[in-house]
Amino acid sequence: MSVTSHDVARAAGVSQPTVSRALRNDPNIAETTRARVAEAARQLGYVPNELGRSLSLQATRRIAVVADLDNPLWPMLIEQLHDGLAQSGYSMTLLAEHGDLQQFEQQLLGGWADGVIMTSARMRATLPFELRRRRVPFVLVNRVIKGLKADAAVADNVAGGRAAAQVLVDAGHTRVGALFGPQDTSTGRDREKGFRAGLEEAGLTLPDSRVMHGEFDFTFGREALPQLLKGRHRATAVFCANDIIAIGALNTARQLGVSVPSDIALMGFDDLDQAAWPVFDLTTISIPFETLVRSAVVRILQRLSGDTSPPRVEVHAVTPVLRGTHLR
Amino acid sequence: MSVTSHDVARAAGVSQPTVSRALRNDPNIAETTRARVAEAARQLGYVPNELGRSLSLQATRRIAVVADLDNPLWPMLIEQLHDGLAQSGYSMTLLAEHGDLQQFEQQLLGGWADGVIMTSARMRATLPFELRRRRVPFVLVNRVIKGLKADAAVADNVAGGRAAAQVLVDAGHTRVGALFGPQDTSTGRDREKGFRAGLEEAGLTLPDSRVMHGEFDFTFGREALPQLLKGRHRATAVFCANDIIAIGALNTARQLGVSVPSDIALMGFDDLDQAAWPVFDLTTISIPFETLVRSAVVRILQRLSGDTSPPRVEVHAVTPVLRGTHLR
Repeated sequence: MSVTSHDVARAAGVSQPTVSRALRNDPNIAETTRARVAEAARQLGYVPNELGRSLSLQATRRIAVVADLDNPLWPMLIEQLHDGLAQSGYSMTLLAEHGDLQQFEQQLLGGWADGVIMTSARMRATLPFELRRRRVPFVLVNRVIKGLKADAAVADNVAGGRAAAQVLVDAGHTRVGALFGPQDTSTGRDREKGFRAGLEEAGLTLPDSRVMHGEFDFTFGREALPQLLKGRHRATAVFCANDIIAIGALNTARQLGVSVPSDIALMGFDDLDQAAWPVFDLTTISIPFETLVRSAVVRILQRLSGDTSPPRVEVHAVTPVLRGTHLR
Repeated sequence: MSVTSHDVARAAGVSQPTVSRALRNDPNIAETTRARVAEAARQLGYVPNELGRSLSLQATRRIAVVADLDNPLWPMLIEQLHDGLAQSGYSMTLLAEHGDLQQFEQQLLGGWADGVIMTSARMRATLPFELRRRRVPFVLVNRVIKGLKADAAVADNVAGGRAAAQVLVDAGHTRVGALFGPQDTSTGRDREKGFRAGLEEAGLTLPDSRVMHGEFDFTFGREALPQLLKGRHRATAVFCANDIIAIGALNTARQLGVSVPSDIALMGFDDLDQAAWPVFDLTTISIPFETLVRSAVVRILQRLSGDTSPPRVEVHAVTPVLRGTHLR
């Protein structure tokens, strides 16, 4: 006869519901109890049946995380999301975004996960609207979507763009250029908006000849820099809408023998680990990713516990990090 | 009354089983049929119930992927794993390894996933042994585990270590050093074994004073390089057991004003995207990660289809990539 949770409960000296909760790592179970139950389960050779458990709870205890795996940010987000969810007894199913989120709609709307965390969202995305319509709990991290009332944890990208302008102005730059991100992302749009406002407040202009738009990727920075080095009135400093664009530009500068910051100053946004590497030493705007992720995890758990309060966008402050690439 | 798969079948002009298979992206269903069924499901507002499906199939159609999220390799592995599994109608549950895999044992052994792909494994790991004992299908990618007969797709790390020695010997180096990886990983152990063999074949010695062991990470390379720059008989070239160690060493070299390769030559292993960046221009050994992942996905799907043939380790050839850091 097979071992049941009642056998484990008896061996561990706890109740049967405590066994279930301990084995799914319910945070309300003390660590010593959890360990005792796990040990008893191991000795008896007991394993809980996940399918039966899903049915009995009418929940999967799974959170789907939608991510753009090419985004250099996401390794920073994903580990904290994983650990935050694991601590609350949830597993994480990863859905990679390749532009086509429709494939996921069927799965996500079919009880395939209890909730969804989206770390990547183009403004034209339809999935979040569909999730909302069907009342599937979800939270956006890092980005928001125009016209969609939804829980979100984001950085203050407008203030960050403005702070970046201030850093370059304070360093004495008057001819400034920009490699802005995609205009169909809230991060791209808001950083641009803030940077333009900051320059305007300082009485500086940003002529179109010193502005380019592109993807948030290495290739854009790599290919765009030579354009900004041309002309008599070329920029002495370039704001890059994220760190990986700036790192692409730095690589091209090194290759062309252009010295940073004496020939051209550069700034990024995000504060990736790589920004602090001595070969880059990149001045940037730091986002409190840990706080964003924690806030998103708390929010989705509140929703799963039946919280029906109106959606809330939490906006977290950013901080300039002055390293070596912004000086004049 | 709620919409059923029979309604969708009628609307799409297909059989009911075809609806189920189309909606779980079964690769045997033609793309046009899949699109027609998806469109009919959308119009009727039909969503399949995943829990019911799991029970009826006695399978979750989920693969758990165990990964060390700090490993710089894994972003390269994970996207291909995700896409390979998605194409076969499987979702991917991510389990981050933080040394403690015991937490997952209960979940993985409880029908929580149909199979497991491990992209990271220390030689002391007990989980794979337990999976094997309980007949949970699993495949190792990139690493193998001593004493465990299991399906695996790995690179030929011994040949790669030998090839790295040959590159440095061909460049005219005679005093060579090494930053080897952890000895409790098959990758660390095999690359060291191959490199030592390659030097020996060329009649060169590798004195302990020019050898250090550490983790496969940036910090190890960063902190170790100064040690290898000391002494009268110091190395003119250093083999790093992976690219991120080499990139750490390159950062320290830049900071100390030590020129690579004229003051010291360096080599990595893996061929990360970053190795090709102009600021690093790192000579390295390339691993066919795409092939490894494809082979692992095919293998786990074979196991899930009832293949009970003996475990098979597929060893894939590696290729030296000569860039700018190995020259004398």
